[in-house]
Amino acid sequence: MQIETYIHAIPDYPKPGIVFRDITPLLANGDAFRETINTFLARYKDQGITKIVGIEARGFIFATALAYAMGVGFVPLRKPGKLPRETVSQRYALEYGEDQLELHAEDLTADDNVLIMDDLLATGGTVLAAVEMLNKLNVTIAECAFVIQLNELPGAKRLKQANIPYYTLCSF
Amino acid sequence: MQIETYIHAIPDYPKPGIVFRDITPLLANGDAFRETINTFLARYKDQGITKIVGIEARGFIFATALAYAMGVGFVPLRKPGKLPRETVSQRYALEYGEDQLELHAEDLTADDNVLIMDDLLATGGTVLAAVEMLNKLNVTIAECAFVIQLNELPGAKRLKQANIPYYTLCSF
Repeated sequence: MQIETYIHAIPDYPKPGIVFRDITPLLANGDAFRETINTFLARYKDQGITKIVGIEARGFIFATALAYAMGVGFVPLRKPGKLPRETVSQRYALEYGEDQLELHAEDLTADDNVLIMDDLLATGGTVLAAVEMLNKLNVTIAECAFVIQLNELPGAKRLKQANIPYYTLCSF
Repeated sequence: MQIETYIHAIPDYPKPGIVFRDITPLLANGDAFRETINTFLARYKDQGITKIVGIEARGFIFATALAYAMGVGFVPLRKPGKLPRETVSQRYALEYGEDQLELHAEDLTADDNVLIMDDLLATGGTVLAAVEMLNKLNVTIAECAFVIQLNELPGAKRLKQANIPYYTLCSF
């Protein structure tokens, strides 16, 4: 099965000149979604992963299905103000302005070997913020996994330069 | 396993007098998360469900893991402006103001038998908006499933009055 064929290119969205990669056809197809998760499962099942961290909101989609498949816990990285217990937080730059991610500090310990998941590796700003947060908690980062990598943007290069291991299923 | 014990009560969050039900301890525990999904799986695996609709963002967590477990497609109901193709949308009232959900119209057809999932049934406003959207597409709604039902709020009563079948794992 070619997973790529279920990811549709939407020209000029959200603005002219941008090609948006739409994962919803992949999600809506039960066989394609299962194959996507099983590909990650085959890669990670024997790596001693203890928790999967997913980045709000589309990262949740892949991280939770894989956490279920692997029988490990899921830890959400959320937008500010949504987690009620003590959090670790990290600001990061967007194209215009900045954003912030939060994580329940109690949900990860230095014994954890963590897989970070998001749907898309673009500029890398979000995942680098996630890595910084996990470093504050001294957890081991096994790898960062993405469904899509955008080759025209610097995310992959920035992860390589920072010696952060990553894996992407499809690149465009 | 008592799923309830993994859902923590946080008093006075997000404001005084409210007891917030925190599902993140359940998510972070691989066994508890798997048991939660397997309980839904046992209920729905032989009901001819063709798609699972999950409501952004915490509904994604349970809907996608269950979609994977059942081998069916997942369709996200999202906040406005995040879906690039033609959408069906529905406004609904919040305590203060209103919000809106959107759905890719092509992702469901009149042949679909759909399970709607969210983490929490509180006032019922969100899920009733979801039901209205799916009715516009003439899909069959098999059931609405929640992890938590808050008994002090009118969601369950409103679903009963509207003859919408629903199921909740834990009630508080």
